[in-house]
Amino acid sequence: MDPVRLALVPGEPAGVGPELCVRLAQAPRDYRLTAFADPRSLLAAARALALPLTLVDPDRATGRAGELAVQEVANVATPAFGTPDPHNAGAVIDALRLAAEGCLRGDFAGLVTGPVHKAAINDGGIAYTGTTELLAAHAGRDVVMMLANDIVRVALVTTHLPLRAVADAITPVAVERTLRITHAALHRDFGIVDPVIAVLGLNPHAGEAGHLGHEEIQVIEPVLAALREEGMQLVGPLPADTAFLPGKLRGFDAVVAMYHDQGLPVLKYSGFERAVNLTLGLPYPRVAVDHGTALDLAGKGLADPSSLIAAAETCARIATARRRGA
Amino acid sequence: MDPVRLALVPGEPAGVGPELCVRLAQAPRDYRLTAFADPRSLLAAARALALPLTLVDPDRATGRAGELAVQEVANVATPAFGTPDPHNAGAVIDALRLAAEGCLRGDFAGLVTGPVHKAAINDGGIAYTGTTELLAAHAGRDVVMMLANDIVRVALVTTHLPLRAVADAITPVAVERTLRITHAALHRDFGIVDPVIAVLGLNPHAGEAGHLGHEEIQVIEPVLAALREEGMQLVGPLPADTAFLPGKLRGFDAVVAMYHDQGLPVLKYSGFERAVNLTLGLPYPRVAVDHGTALDLAGKGLADPSSLIAAAETCARIATARRRGA
Repeated sequence: MDPVRLALVPGEPAGVGPELCVRLAQAPRDYRLTAFADPRSLLAAARALALPLTLVDPDRATGRAGELAVQEVANVATPAFGTPDPHNAGAVIDALRLAAEGCLRGDFAGLVTGPVHKAAINDGGIAYTGTTELLAAHAGRDVVMMLANDIVRVALVTTHLPLRAVADAITPVAVERTLRITHAALHRDFGIVDPVIAVLGLNPHAGEAGHLGHEEIQVIEPVLAALREEGMQLVGPLPADTAFLPGKLRGFDAVVAMYHDQGLPVLKYSGFERAVNLTLGLPYPRVAVDHGTALDLAGKGLADPSSLIAAAETCARIATARRRGA
Repeated sequence: MDPVRLALVPGEPAGVGPELCVRLAQAPRDYRLTAFADPRSLLAAARALALPLTLVDPDRATGRAGELAVQEVANVATPAFGTPDPHNAGAVIDALRLAAEGCLRGDFAGLVTGPVHKAAINDGGIAYTGTTELLAAHAGRDVVMMLANDIVRVALVTTHLPLRAVADAITPVAVERTLRITHAALHRDFGIVDPVIAVLGLNPHAGEAGHLGHEEIQVIEPVLAALREEGMQLVGPLPADTAFLPGKLRGFDAVVAMYHDQGLPVLKYSGFERAVNLTLGLPYPRVAVDHGTALDLAGKGLADPSSLIAAAETCARIATARRRGA
């Protein structure tokens, strides 16, 4: 089979994204990468790190060490490491949109993205709440955010909401949608025939039979009962504090948490460096780094490329699985 | 110096509490324990586990292996392992109250407690929301619940509240009280001269400068600023998902979380067996196990005594520190 072709978007050019792409390109790979970026930005990062980088036309990509294919998306201003320039907001967003379009058209089998600087985009006059949301709207799909490392996969029913708004957002529709999308991805993308999903409660002790809240009884349990009727293996609603005990975790293919800070601290504690951020539910696999722009490290060669490397490898693996399953 | 004297309450007699006390008594110790319990219950547990147990009068306790001093609190019904009897609710609560009174009187230098079965107490006609709350009311003190293991200490601003009620409970008074009590305990009980406390935000990403909630700006930050003026070392408000990264955690003497499921999953993941539950702010140290009654394991000799052993050792250590500091 031909190697899978992935689109790569470095993200904020003043952050560590470009240099992480350069470091990703240093090793040979059995998939093909096309960076949607300004070639000058990638070459500047390579120079700053004193690493070799040969940019090639996407049609000529070979996956050799030190080589990267580029689809040019020009910056308006020359980026200065550590200081995002809102003038480049349009280029950052264009790169994401062009790469996503390439994926939807089938030119690429998946999308790998580096960190974007939310404030710089907004300061540049572009309404932007996150790349996950942008890609969901672009594709017209409901999506689920999943963070994963070698220890645990955590999917979230709600993501970037004030805590005050979380309880009302835990609706039967939201819980069911999250479970269906997560279940389908575990099956299709991770090759798990009959996945076991742990579902956390919303309240401490999963509501303790109604003593500490009613959402488990009124919202979560009925959804679980209905989906179990269809054959899904769902465990819960479980108390969040004990669901992640290592002995229990080994029995779950994923944990569905009701909100951000319920699910992500253990995931990051248990293995931050190799953690990736997946968007489930898009027509193509999208895998992102699980860290920010790290402006204080940009251009210094100190940023750890593990998460971007894990993201690219995960995306390639999923793209290959989808091709086999298609 | 005389060995410190601690009160020990096994908790629910149909659960694993009595057998954990028997196992705790198997090793010699340099502190003295007096169990507030029905002697028959302790002897039945020893028989079930085929372990030696010599019960002695509290005045004759020596700390020898296999020996335990007992202050009798008689059960009404003979407990059956695995099936709590609400008729014994009164004895369970009496044991806690008598032991707490002994601590307030100065007969004991600390209190160690096993797991209580909340529903059995309430079914027995006694309003009970938790031992922490009972002891706080009994002593007339504001308290803080702290969970601790060898990796991290987590103190909570709110504990057993429905998630829906958490945001409104994060008041300046609650945050300040939690920080003062936690800071004082780290200093007095843990011997940390100038403790560094990490304080989590309420919202994901600690509110992201107001984009994801305002409680950090309106409630938490002003409290931190005021307490820093007094000289406290407070870091935060921090995003909960990255505050627990191992490299960061090593710089903190404790993490103050705003609510239960924000702070406890990492603590339990990182070392459940040796975790203990401390009540800070009482006139005496109280340390409890970090697990429930494990009714399915009771009487079978399968329950792990690590948490009760860690609780007794922690309580003895704190009692000794307080005596030295007094």
